[in-house]
Amino acid sequence: MLSFACDYLEGAHEKVLQRLTETNREQLPGYGDDIYCQRAAEKIRTACQCENADVHLLVGGTQTNQVVIDSLLAGYQGVIAADTGHISVHEAGAIEFTGHKVLALPQTDGKLAAETLQNYLKTFWADESCEHMVIPGMVYISYPTEYGTLYNKAELQALSDVCHAYHMPLYLDGARLGYGLAAQEDMTLADIAALCDVFYIGGTKVGALCGEAVVFTHGNTPPHFLTSIKQHGALLAKRRLVGVQFDALFTDDLYMEISRHAIQMARRLKTMLREKGYGFFLDSPTNQQFVILTREQKERLEKAVGFSVWALHPDGSAVVRFATSWATTDEQLDMLEKML
Amino acid sequence: MLSFACDYLEGAHEKVLQRLTETNREQLPGYGDDIYCQRAAEKIRTACQCENADVHLLVGGTQTNQVVIDSLLAGYQGVIAADTGHISVHEAGAIEFTGHKVLALPQTDGKLAAETLQNYLKTFWADESCEHMVIPGMVYISYPTEYGTLYNKAELQALSDVCHAYHMPLYLDGARLGYGLAAQEDMTLADIAALCDVFYIGGTKVGALCGEAVVFTHGNTPPHFLTSIKQHGALLAKRRLVGVQFDALFTDDLYMEISRHAIQMARRLKTMLREKGYGFFLDSPTNQQFVILTREQKERLEKAVGFSVWALHPDGSAVVRFATSWATTDEQLDMLEKML
Amino acid sequence: MLSFACDYLEGAHEKVLQRLTETNREQLPGYGDDIYCQRAAEKIRTACQCENADVHLLVGGTQTNQVVIDSLLAGYQGVIAADTGHISVHEAGAIEFTGHKVLALPQTDGKLAAETLQNYLKTFWADESCEHMVIPGMVYISYPTEYGTLYNKAELQALSDVCHAYHMPLYLDGARLGYGLAAQEDMTLADIAALCDVFYIGGTKVGALCGEAVVFTHGNTPPHFLTSIKQHGALLAKRRLVGVQFDALFTDDLYMEISRHAIQMARRLKTMLREKGYGFFLDSPTNQQFVILTREQKERLEKAVGFSVWALHPDGSAVVRFATSWATTDEQLDMLEKML
Amino acid sequence: MLSFACDYLEGAHEKVLQRLTETNREQLPGYGDDIYCQRAAEKIRTACQCENADVHLLVGGTQTNQVVIDSLLAGYQGVIAADTGHISVHEAGAIEFTGHKVLALPQTDGKLAAETLQNYLKTFWADESCEHMVIPGMVYISYPTEYGTLYNKAELQALSDVCHAYHMPLYLDGARLGYGLAAQEDMTLADIAALCDVFYIGGTKVGALCGEAVVFTHGNTPPHFLTSIKQHGALLAKRRLVGVQFDALFTDDLYMEISRHAIQMARRLKTMLREKGYGFFLDSPTNQQFVILTREQKERLEKAVGFSVWALHPDGSAVVRFATSWATTDEQLDMLEKML
Repeated sequence: MLSFACDYLEGAHEKVLQRLTETNREQLPGYGDDIYCQRAAEKIRTACQCENADVHLLVGGTQTNQVVIDSLLAGYQGVIAADTGHISVHEAGAIEFTGHKVLALPQTDGKLAAETLQNYLKTFWADESCEHMVIPGMVYISYPTEYGTLYNKAELQALSDVCHAYHMPLYLDGARLGYGLAAQEDMTLADIAALCDVFYIGGTKVGALCGEAVVFTHGNTPPHFLTSIKQHGALLAKRRLVGVQFDALFTDDLYMEISRHAIQMARRLKTMLREKGYGFFLDSPTNQQFVILTREQKERLEKAVGFSVWALHPDGSAVVRFATSWATTDEQLDMLEKML
Repeated sequence: MLSFACDYLEGAHEKVLQRLTETNREQLPGYGDDIYCQRAAEKIRTACQCENADVHLLVGGTQTNQVVIDSLLAGYQGVIAADTGHISVHEAGAIEFTGHKVLALPQTDGKLAAETLQNYLKTFWADESCEHMVIPGMVYISYPTEYGTLYNKAELQALSDVCHAYHMPLYLDGARLGYGLAAQEDMTLADIAALCDVFYIGGTKVGALCGEAVVFTHGNTPPHFLTSIKQHGALLAKRRLVGVQFDALFTDDLYMEISRHAIQMARRLKTMLREKGYGFFLDSPTNQQFVILTREQKERLEKAVGFSVWALHPDGSAVVRFATSWATTDEQLDMLEKML
Repeated sequence: MLSFACDYLEGAHEKVLQRLTETNREQLPGYGDDIYCQRAAEKIRTACQCENADVHLLVGGTQTNQVVIDSLLAGYQGVIAADTGHISVHEAGAIEFTGHKVLALPQTDGKLAAETLQNYLKTFWADESCEHMVIPGMVYISYPTEYGTLYNKAELQALSDVCHAYHMPLYLDGARLGYGLAAQEDMTLADIAALCDVFYIGGTKVGALCGEAVVFTHGNTPPHFLTSIKQHGALLAKRRLVGVQFDALFTDDLYMEISRHAIQMARRLKTMLREKGYGFFLDSPTNQQFVILTREQKERLEKAVGFSVWALHPDGSAVVRFATSWATTDEQLDMLEKML
Repeated sequence: MLSFACDYLEGAHEKVLQRLTETNREQLPGYGDDIYCQRAAEKIRTACQCENADVHLLVGGTQTNQVVIDSLLAGYQGVIAADTGHISVHEAGAIEFTGHKVLALPQTDGKLAAETLQNYLKTFWADESCEHMVIPGMVYISYPTEYGTLYNKAELQALSDVCHAYHMPLYLDGARLGYGLAAQEDMTLADIAALCDVFYIGGTKVGALCGEAVVFTHGNTPPHFLTSIKQHGALLAKRRLVGVQFDALFTDDLYMEISRHAIQMARRLKTMLREKGYGFFLDSPTNQQFVILTREQKERLEKAVGFSVWALHPDGSAVVRFATSWATTDEQLDMLEKML
């Protein structure tokens, strides 16, 4: 059955798979000491316009958040996030597992406002019993957010400014980074690198079989980070598997090319849905569209097409997600159009 | 300077101290195998009307919450609490330190409603992605709450029913348990024991130098609990220190007698404040009173008497706490009255 | 440069890669709910002759050890292992990271003897202060061991018996399981499944790009294991990546066929080395050969061929490892022969 | 029954108890902000001849080791200790509970030799796979050791030198520090402070009801240490309880006076045992004496006097511990003498 349930339905982009095949019999050292991990890092540095960036290749998103956050925080610190943040809700407590509290703040459409952050920090440090609470140690945001929304450059700059005023690193979860950049004219990978202390470029949802590329933007990789990765169970013996894929994704602008394709598909999807009279939960500019379905619409559609249920209301209506990706085709959208 | 800042300003009740002195040179085995720990347990069982209860003596409140919650939860589970709960806010992340998320729910005056709990659990288990979230494994409440308020028996029964319908233990933090029971006519220690799976009887704030008595109400002590206590750094070599104190507190109803005294003092304090025209943040029946002070009132009073600041507003007004305890005297209240 | 440094130098067996390519554009549900993960599980159950086995697909070896051990142990328990065990030495403390001690026991050639285990347990439980120590909760062994050696069936049976007498699960790390089974006539996958409570079938070192298949042999998967996997950062969104690979490896006996090939190559290697007069650190029947090199031999060989250094002695001599794998060819051994 | 089973059989020295009584009704701020915690710190600084030392008062030994070690180590680091060290064996895995491995090294009579340490570190850092292992981050020793033995100044200096050459703090567990210093002429508290980066002065076993005083010797308290203490469940609300006791112990040299008494008692005990023909497991100069008993001796003595069994042999003979303390009297030794 045709599905738009998520953006990890298919394997990898064909060019990625081809490179895996071409390099398959090459004997390469393990754990990331191979030429492809190095090339991937070099190409990412160039794309970020960030000569001093360190690039580390990990396997999945929750794992990446866990390793990065735990490695950057002192034992007594927690990480600030929107209360809708992926680490706050949908990572099975992977951050708390490492001993750190997720300090959840209110948000709007999935976005944490600089003002909210500032007020929290001001109140926290003014509290005479602050030493009895979890000390805020860094800030986590996602781009696009879990609702598909985007920070504009001014908003990101403002968050970055508050973080740095309080001497905390700003960390951006870019599980769908390509889709955000493709949807937003005035934001580039170099902007992200300039404003964040660390972020990751999502591969799993943007053309790879698996893999996320963590970028520490100013030589700020924590000491013995390889050991920390291993300690968290996140070190691939054949790290080339991720290296070759990111090397391919960052060759000839493939990562952004397939991201732009997904956004074109999302725009067509959005138009289709709007023209058919469907309502939207919020206005998402990226590849995830949150649609309000009546009970009748839901029951009819779910027989023919895959989507995921975000919220189910007592009256049977629901907020559901349709996602496009690098793999979505016009033919798939044609099929969907007939069902709507 | 006279202080009402908290209920742990003095040492121990004189009868407690006297027993420590009288037993001081007795040679006793370590780690709780002594006669006083056993007597304390026996007397607490009797007071709880709960023959199958297990009693374990620990040192402090945060420690007790940490050991009990971590020992009762499976690794993948979290603990539900009011978002104002002590473990949610003021224990420096001691629960997350052990790998478990505190699942914070909305409350009213510090109290978690059974309906709120039920709705959360119903929604949680109906969510198709619930396996990607922290599984709720137990419920934490405090009695009195952090705002001095109390669950009545029907409310506690309702919470207990929801917990058991979802096969989760109900845990009650009784750091100020005596003050709650003394303030509420229709609730007894036996009621607490009947409705909760585990709770602790606070000593530190109710007449002891230190010490909390954990009660597992139906033979439900986790296996190898002594080892867990030691592993959490919570096992006293001279556990008699807590045993002797609880033995004294549960002799001749001392624990409730001094608790009733504190509540009498609190009622006089409340009347005094009300008569002098002070406003209250909420209506607390127990030993903690949350008072609204204007900037002028605050500046004047803080020169002469100790209290603690709960919330400071931009205009200089504040919500402050005055607490009575077993140690509060009429003379102290007379002095305060003159200052108000 | 030609290398025998380890058994994860190349990508995947061509049949595995081919299946990844063939299934690449299929839309499949995430997190393991796909047909390939199910088929892999079914084929593994059949190969194990173990109808009630549960199969869970993870990414790497350290991760697998961490998730399985942490999920099986109670908080106060530790895992017993040989002091040369991978979890004892070369996993960067991944087990301790989850709060559990590795209880390291003496071994011979990497093997833990049932008698050693029995004596340890007997002494432990007879110790009057055993409650102040880490409680042993399970036993970890590796097959083949880190030195390439193998337990025979009687030895494995004896270990299994001791474990079960003490009510502890026996866990077998099969990172190189195929190579062990291919080297040992009287041991089958079904024997492993019958004697162990849980084990994993290594993919990363035996023909896959990545992936390990955990087998709980008698319906003993811990509750909410998917949540635990996610919490440890070990859940692939595109879990199909491992599912397709194990489906291929367990089709037409591919896993054992390529394992037997590696052992044939290892035997040729061993013969070659012996005939050239090289000494062995110990007698390994599997794909890892530990060879003693003089300083001169080491300096000459390391210019021409890759191997890994196991121990370096002050006089410059060394114990080094040569490994074959599914990917080793006769041509490579021909080349090596000329260099020896 | 008279007992020499351990050095925590009685309560507190009378002068300590008296000060608790005298200060009992004073209203004091919580968590260590009181005058007695400050005075204790000041007196300890003076006794250590260490103006820049920070003193923090905790409750028990395992707790202290856990808080100090976890706060000093980075997440990926472990702590080196003798394999007989208290943290290696008898703290129920309290260090591993915080995520860190105890890296156990061989010892002699409980003492870790500088040469052993140096060789370990040299080999570790020369290992090409050291990044896959737990990184050594600090060194733990106990003084006196678990066998009652003592490092002399040259040995401690040598350990300190190796630690500092490898940029690691040296931490000394002084659960029985007074008994060590009283037994050794050429070692003072100032020497300990000069050679260690952090250590603790044991109170529980040397005259206090509970309490240990941690000394960071050169302004090297970890940031937000109070928060860490709270997070570990180790912060007393009435921290005065420990403050008053250490203030008393460090007034008029009481701590050393009662320590010297215990050592005098130990010397008499040792002489008595030797004269009666008992053998010793090793030669301990401090308050713990390890005695070899035949089955007959053991069976006869255990009916009349308490001691603790260290090792029980198959033939019924045993190594047992007799301990003296600040509380031991000549009358008690007289009684024992008659039984031997």
